[in-house]
Amino acid sequence: MTIEFQAAPSDKTALEERGPFTPRFDEAGLVTAVVTDASDGQLLMVAHMNAEALALTIETGIAHYYSRSRAKIWKKGETSGNLQTVTELLTDCDQDAVWLKVSVGGHAASCHTGRRSCFYRAVSLLDGQAHLEVVDDERHFDPTQVYSGS
Amino acid sequence: MTIEFQAAPSDKTALEERGPFTPRFDEAGLVTAVVTDASDGQLLMVAHMNAEALALTIETGIAHYYSRSRAKIWKKGETSGNLQTVTELLTDCDQDAVWLKVSVGGHAASCHTGRRSCFYRAVSLLDGQAHLEVVDDERHFDPTQVYSGS
Repeated sequence: MTIEFQAAPSDKTALEERGPFTPRFDEAGLVTAVVTDASDGQLLMVAHMNAEALALTIETGIAHYYSRSRAKIWKKGETSGNLQTVTELLTDCDQDAVWLKVSVGGHAASCHTGRRSCFYRAVSLLDGQAHLEVVDDERHFDPTQVYSGS
Repeated sequence: MTIEFQAAPSDKTALEERGPFTPRFDEAGLVTAVVTDASDGQLLMVAHMNAEALALTIETGIAHYYSRSRAKIWKKGETSGNLQTVTELLTDCDQDAVWLKVSVGGHAASCHTGRRSCFYRAVSLLDGQAHLEVVDDERHFDPTQVYSGS
């Protein structure tokens, strides 16, 4: 990793303008990453990045995240083949989130369930309580086969 | 608030299927909210919701968030007039993030800088370091006027 991020300025205006990218990592050292498909804007997933994952992503053009459950760098698609090539990376006004526009390889799926997007369920109210209905059940791969070795 | 969210099941498969919406709030009691424009899918902002904000959003159809800096419920657009009407709310495979598709009122802007989206800057490499360039500088309102009373 060669990119070293500078500390975020305390001046709010400086944080909101052009200039050095100074990501504001949270207490756990992470920023939120929102990932959409570069071809049509579909929201694919939400993940987290530490400084190393963010630098690797910028340097290699391949999306890397930080897996909180496994506590390590996660090169997305390394097992499934669904690598994400980043076409554009943006940040928000206070620099604590990034937006990756990606092109997905392999099965063109970003969810470990085999679906294109992790957001395959919609919330609806039923008898005053919140329920989930599946709005996309198309599987691009069989998770039991793809992840059998992990 | 009438909706009471049940605790998330420990069974991973149950968490990923249809059934009760059991959001997985983090240690701070929050889930991540990704907000896109229902009309064209443009990413507008990323925010956070506690159980109260999430319930208010589902019950009223108007986006409510939790402001971490102000430590209180934040009815988005209450000051600026840019209220967000939710047309669909989805969640991801592990239920720790929600996706709101919204229609924005007022000036049709979601960023406090007056821009449509908080993601108005792209990251690029310059001499081995990460820099930000402004890719959208159209202001839908003047922040100094809109927030003058706050």
